Amino acid sequence: MPERIVIALGGNALQSKESGATAEGQLEVVKRTCEHIAEISRRGYEMAVVHGNGPQVGRIVLASETAKDVVPPMPFDVCGAMSQGYIGYHIQQALKYALSRRNRNYPVVTLATQVIVDKNDPAFRNPTKPIGAFYSEAEAKALEQEKGYTMRDDAGRGWRRVVPSPLPKKIVEIGAIRLLWDHAIVVACGGGGIPVVENMDGTLEGVAAVIDKDFAAELLAEEVDADALMILTEVEKVAIRFGQPDQRDLSRLSLAEAARFVREGHFGVGSMLPKVEAAMRFVRHNPSKKAIITSLDHALDALDGKTGTIVTFS
Amino acid sequence: MPERIVIALGGNALQSKESGATAEGQLEVVKRTCEHIAEISRRGYEMAVVHGNGPQVGRIVLASETAKDVVPPMPFDVCGAMSQGYIGYHIQQALKYALSRRNRNYPVVTLATQVIVDKNDPAFRNPTKPIGAFYSEAEAKALEQEKGYTMRDDAGRGWRRVVPSPLPKKIVEIGAIRLLWDHAIVVACGGGGIPVVENMDGTLEGVAAVIDKDFAAELLAEEVDADALMILTEVEKVAIRFGQPDQRDLSRLSLAEAARFVREGHFGVGSMLPKVEAAMRFVRHNPSKKAIITSLDHALDALDGKTGTIVTFS
Repeated sequence: MPERIVIALGGNALQSKESGATAEGQLEVVKRTCEHIAEISRRGYEMAVVHGNGPQVGRIVLASETAKDVVPPMPFDVCGAMSQGYIGYHIQQALKYALSRRNRNYPVVTLATQVIVDKNDPAFRNPTKPIGAFYSEAEAKALEQEKGYTMRDDAGRGWRRVVPSPLPKKIVEIGAIRLLWDHAIVVACGGGGIPVVENMDGTLEGVAAVIDKDFAAELLAEEVDADALMILTEVEKVAIRFGQPDQRDLSRLSLAEAARFVREGHFGVGSMLPKVEAAMRFVRHNPSKKAIITSLDHALDALDGKTGTIVTFS
Repeated sequence: MPERIVIALGGNALQSKESGATAEGQLEVVKRTCEHIAEISRRGYEMAVVHGNGPQVGRIVLASETAKDVVPPMPFDVCGAMSQGYIGYHIQQALKYALSRRNRNYPVVTLATQVIVDKNDPAFRNPTKPIGAFYSEAEAKALEQEKGYTMRDDAGRGWRRVVPSPLPKKIVEIGAIRLLWDHAIVVACGGGGIPVVENMDGTLEGVAAVIDKDFAAELLAEEVDADALMILTEVEKVAIRFGQPDQRDLSRLSLAEAARFVREGHFGVGSMLPKVEAAMRFVRHNPSKKAIITSLDHALDALDGKTGTIVTFS
């Protein structure tokens, strides 16, 4: 049976300094990204792709807020759904072509994906993810009053709305993802999924929150019984003492070592930390499997065990 | 075997005068719509849902154009992809709940859908669909120069960009739709699909165009071998001499009659005409099958043959 992997794509897979913030520029970056993914597929791996959406949903929110006197602003959950359509469309278009160049006439399909979070997740009491435009303090206070937003001073650059980042609990569309898995490359849980809570009456309701895409990819990997979780980012290997003269790149990382390095504060909050934590979670729940953290360029070599950081249970 | 239908939802299934233009208001309309769809499902029909996106994509374009000095404007194909994520998310959330209330624990899933159009479609030489903001004549001329847009004076209300409305040729993600059909209700080809052309090198490329959602639904119905194409709109039956004292509602309509009424100009361009033409196309290609045009409220009765306009080959 072919090995199954879930690939989590970081921001650099979708956008570069050169591409800038235009959708046209991003599509060029996505095309290069998809050459790598297609190459992994050509080697016989079955896969699903989870992508981030930070800058993209940020721009959707910003455009919506900027145009608020002309068009009613979009709720944040809908902005997330829009970013799934937008980024998924680019990936499915570019990946299908990259596959066809390798004689793999393989469907690629994007699913709008809702991910259930727990209303009682402590993250809701401490929103941390800044989204959208910068405001003056007075405007910020008015928005807190008027809309119930939580606003924070963002490192002196102005006030921004912050939303919570709860853990993903359940992928609503998991049934469809499983059905498609054997026959297609599925792009799902984009941006970590559209965050919804389950009400007492069984209804789902979108909430203003950001689910970390690495945690969503981890949950997806468990749910489809993937052999490996592959988190692609900007660096070839996870490092401790990152950026210091005695930086040490890690080729292998056991759960116990990872836990120690996390405690020692080696990994940046909001950058490497969630990746290492998602990898740890995957191998903790699946002790015979592995998680890989590496860069897009080194993904294939990492699958062959030649580079990257391989996270294992022991 | 259960009867298979493709349902095309008109604008009134997604938005009402009361709901206004907010996403929150639209979700309420979508919830009511989904009660009807769930009821059809409860009766044992298998189905896919195609929705329009006119007002929604219009607002996405308008917000994007309004915010153009803050956020780079989105290409029109990407705006279409965003509208699929947005509307599909609402439908899958509301429909899943409406089904669960009927003890149908049935997956509902939205696929980002690309639809190939022919570069040589005559529509490209005569763009007719207005989108986005109104501009002054001077601004319009500048946009024609700068971006290559086609701008038209819109009934004296100002100048707007117009895009072509080519016929759908091929649904790129049809394989995935077929795979899911037996197991889920699929929301696909939203807004008529994201229009793409096929380049000589095999790449797909998004174009600024609007595919009529009724024609896209018709193509989908053919591709999944549906038993019926059901086009839902604001009226219970198609009428000739609509709005005149001698208006006549039509219960049955053969291909030959329909062709005559089209020639006689009974059906409004951009409203009833594409619906009748899509219905005609479906029965012309599938002489043993039927197309139904009716309102959401009367959908079930129309499936039972009690009302609506049933279009048949002869």
